Amino acid sequence: MAEKIYHVFGHKSPDTDTICSSIAYAELLKKMGKNAKPFRLGEINNETRFVLEKFNVEVPELLENAKDKDVVLIDHNSFEESAEGIEEARIHAIIDHHKMNFRYNEPITIITLPWGCTATIVATIYEHLGIEIDEKIAGLLLSAILSDTVIFKSPTTTEKDKEWAEKLAKICGIDDILAFGTEMFKHKSNLKDKTPREIILLDSKILTTSSGKKIRVSQVEVVDDTEILEKKEELLKEMEKLLEEENLFGILLLVTNIMKEGSTVLILAKDISLFEKAFGTEFKDNEAYLPGLMSRKKQVIPKIADI
Amino acid sequence: MAEKIYHVFGHKSPDTDTICSSIAYAELLKKMGKNAKPFRLGEINNETRFVLEKFNVEVPELLENAKDKDVVLIDHNSFEESAEGIEEARIHAIIDHHKMNFRYNEPITIITLPWGCTATIVATIYEHLGIEIDEKIAGLLLSAILSDTVIFKSPTTTEKDKEWAEKLAKICGIDDILAFGTEMFKHKSNLKDKTPREIILLDSKILTTSSGKKIRVSQVEVVDDTEILEKKEELLKEMEKLLEEENLFGILLLVTNIMKEGSTVLILAKDISLFEKAFGTEFKDNEAYLPGLMSRKKQVIPKIADI
Repeated sequence: MAEKIYHVFGHKSPDTDTICSSIAYAELLKKMGKNAKPFRLGEINNETRFVLEKFNVEVPELLENAKDKDVVLIDHNSFEESAEGIEEARIHAIIDHHKMNFRYNEPITIITLPWGCTATIVATIYEHLGIEIDEKIAGLLLSAILSDTVIFKSPTTTEKDKEWAEKLAKICGIDDILAFGTEMFKHKSNLKDKTPREIILLDSKILTTSSGKKIRVSQVEVVDDTEILEKKEELLKEMEKLLEEENLFGILLLVTNIMKEGSTVLILAKDISLFEKAFGTEFKDNEAYLPGLMSRKKQVIPKIADI
Repeated sequence: MAEKIYHVFGHKSPDTDTICSSIAYAELLKKMGKNAKPFRLGEINNETRFVLEKFNVEVPELLENAKDKDVVLIDHNSFEESAEGIEEARIHAIIDHHKMNFRYNEPITIITLPWGCTATIVATIYEHLGIEIDEKIAGLLLSAILSDTVIFKSPTTTEKDKEWAEKLAKICGIDDILAFGTEMFKHKSNLKDKTPREIILLDSKILTTSSGKKIRVSQVEVVDDTEILEKKEELLKEMEKLLEEENLFGILLLVTNIMKEGSTVLILAKDISLFEKAFGTEFKDNEAYLPGLMSRKKQVIPKIADI
């Protein structure tokens, strides 16, 4: 019988945390004598590419379908955000920091913690199991923390994320964490060569509300939002297309300005007033600026989950 | 503002693992400077009473309703097995070893591991956090492991459960683990003064299958099954009443003989043939003996979850 291969992967529209935590967790399984391999579910973004190149790590292979495979879900737990064929996969574990929406017919390993980043959880599991984190893995995990916590500015950031960032920076020899983070975000912000559709789908999640409405929530994090907001009309046109194509109830694009620490929210929806109630704000011309809004997970999803 | 109180409790029809792990986890939170208190959702069984008396620990208070409370779910995660009002509670954490069926609108702490007992997970969390396990807590956790793994005979038993049982026995000064386990089970088996309904509800869970059928699965673990099987007709009559009262699709009573390492299954259902297919066995006169069947969770629930 062929040896079981653990396919370790994060969510669709992969970001730096999803890719780096998958690589690090697959490596952990290998160090524990298991056959494991990291995968990705889509194109990696510019920031992630910069990180992988910096620490000289290969881009994980694309996973087309998870059917009949042994899998570990990283940085997600809902099937909507997971691989094609996930309903027919054998799920062994979930390591995640999102809200839970999961049903499975057997007990499995599930570790979700309300921390800023899945990478912080993966680092903690390495420590718990007494397995050394090498330089490359430390570099990946540090990058994931800086990316997901928006260099510690996101309200999702916990002391654990900060502590681990310090420890990991020492292991991988990064002296100035903030400078490294800012360098990363410059790569992330580079949206020049992207079409409106690409911008919307770069970091995007679909959630189904408790009453069954499908809502797509996209986010771009930039150091300067002038350029992207100049494209507002094109972006709204593309959001309208997606609304129809995907039979969505609503679609939100959060343009998060890291420097100003707030987000401009562009919205298209079948009934915008529900979102106005949820956010307690008016959307004028499909737009509102929300000061302090940095985190989709903590400041957007809970507000609209019961729309 | 009043300080937040964490209400820590296990599932309905509490067993030794659910009670002891709740007490131990509440104690852990207290040692971390939090305000926490263990609760129970129903009458404790004779085995649990014996254990609490032996280690001189108070029976936790009954929780009538979880509405508007800050809660930690121990040894369960589905709302069906949880407290009244759980839909309106603030859930902070889940520590469990069952299959997952959970949805919540915020990220929280969830640790489920496919081990034989929640107590083994609680012990591991103590260790991970560097918090000492005292004599009383060690006694409770050891008892929970012996109870849930049926003194290591259940197929759910893992090396982790055995290792922790050894360590905990040393801390609480139990020299002969097997003798202590057998003494515990004698108290559990004491069904003499119980009515048929009490026997059925002593350790019982309701699951909803993927197609929405409600099934009650009860289990009694005995060292001698003659006495209880003599009451078969009375038990079936009571099962029929419950089937109607609770609008169930089926009800199973597993009479597990620890010595023979197998279970006699009594069944009442709207369509028994579905269960015959699921178990690959014939139920003659609403009864079948299944050699090797020890674990409801591992050997029964997965088989009927998609009926």
